[in-house]
Amino acid sequence: MTPEESMSATAVQSWTTNVERAGKLFSALDESQLVQEVAPGRNRLVYLWGHLIAVHDAMAPLIGVGERLHPELDAMFLTEADKRASLPSAGELKAYWDEVHGRLLEAFRRFTPAEWAQKHTAMSEDDFKANPLRNRLAVLLSRTNHLSYHLGQAALVSKPTPR
Amino acid sequence: MTPEESMSATAVQSWTTNVERAGKLFSALDESQLVQEVAPGRNRLVYLWGHLIAVHDAMAPLIGVGERLHPELDAMFLTEADKRASLPSAGELKAYWDEVHGRLLEAFRRFTPAEWAQKHTAMSEDDFKANPLRNRLAVLLSRTNHLSYHLGQAALVSKPTPR
Repeated sequence: MTPEESMSATAVQSWTTNVERAGKLFSALDESQLVQEVAPGRNRLVYLWGHLIAVHDAMAPLIGVGERLHPELDAMFLTEADKRASLPSAGELKAYWDEVHGRLLEAFRRFTPAEWAQKHTAMSEDDFKANPLRNRLAVLLSRTNHLSYHLGQAALVSKPTPR
Repeated sequence: MTPEESMSATAVQSWTTNVERAGKLFSALDESQLVQEVAPGRNRLVYLWGHLIAVHDAMAPLIGVGERLHPELDAMFLTEADKRASLPSAGELKAYWDEVHGRLLEAFRRFTPAEWAQKHTAMSEDDFKANPLRNRLAVLLSRTNHLSYHLGQAALVSKPTPR
């Protein structure tokens, strides 16, 4: 394994580990647990779950893997704050979660190191020349951190003690 | 910039961005804000701040950058849960934060891609052959995620709305 192969595989593994951790956490909750707020007046667990699905689904066009699978989630989980009475069921969210992450992981495992270092689709060629760190890997690392950020919040109510 | 140079620089930038975000968040808090719990019955902000310093300081020997600067922080911020009445002052924590991160970043910027792909010091040569993803980069990504995890918790009380 070359250093560059090792580095891209390490980043994909970091993503996968956190996706699996979040998948286990959220899919173990029943509907009454899902409407708990992570702290008084803050987002409900169900909102964080849908929010992560919407954000991760939006990674696909950004790194050139294909179109969104569920753009209809954006209104309730991205552009709007957590306030809707009616949201998708736990079963629906679980199905979306598996679908969105299955598709991404398949693509991630095919990317070569050179492809990870290529620009993401929201960058122009000129901007990328000025800042070559705005690449696909940056999107992957940024979304892994964002996932960890909300996992830390979800853990406050979904298990007895924070790690 | 080769793909491998781009990848290691991207990972260091992801670390730096989150360290700066956390540094700003914690150092802006006064002593009365620092003793707030992130959620009822959960860790206080001051504990998270010290916890991150202790965890990051312990990265140095793990990736072969040198000895711990502040091993005395482990008892209060790592092995013990948040319960001590007396902890270092905000001024002391700020100084430790800057010292620990300044030293790490200097080393991170010198590592070549091949050095990032080398094993961390807690792995034997044989174990590393079996799992080449237990490398220095894996430590960096894991600690960046851990930092994001606690940043998400700290944000629940340190600013009006979660991101």
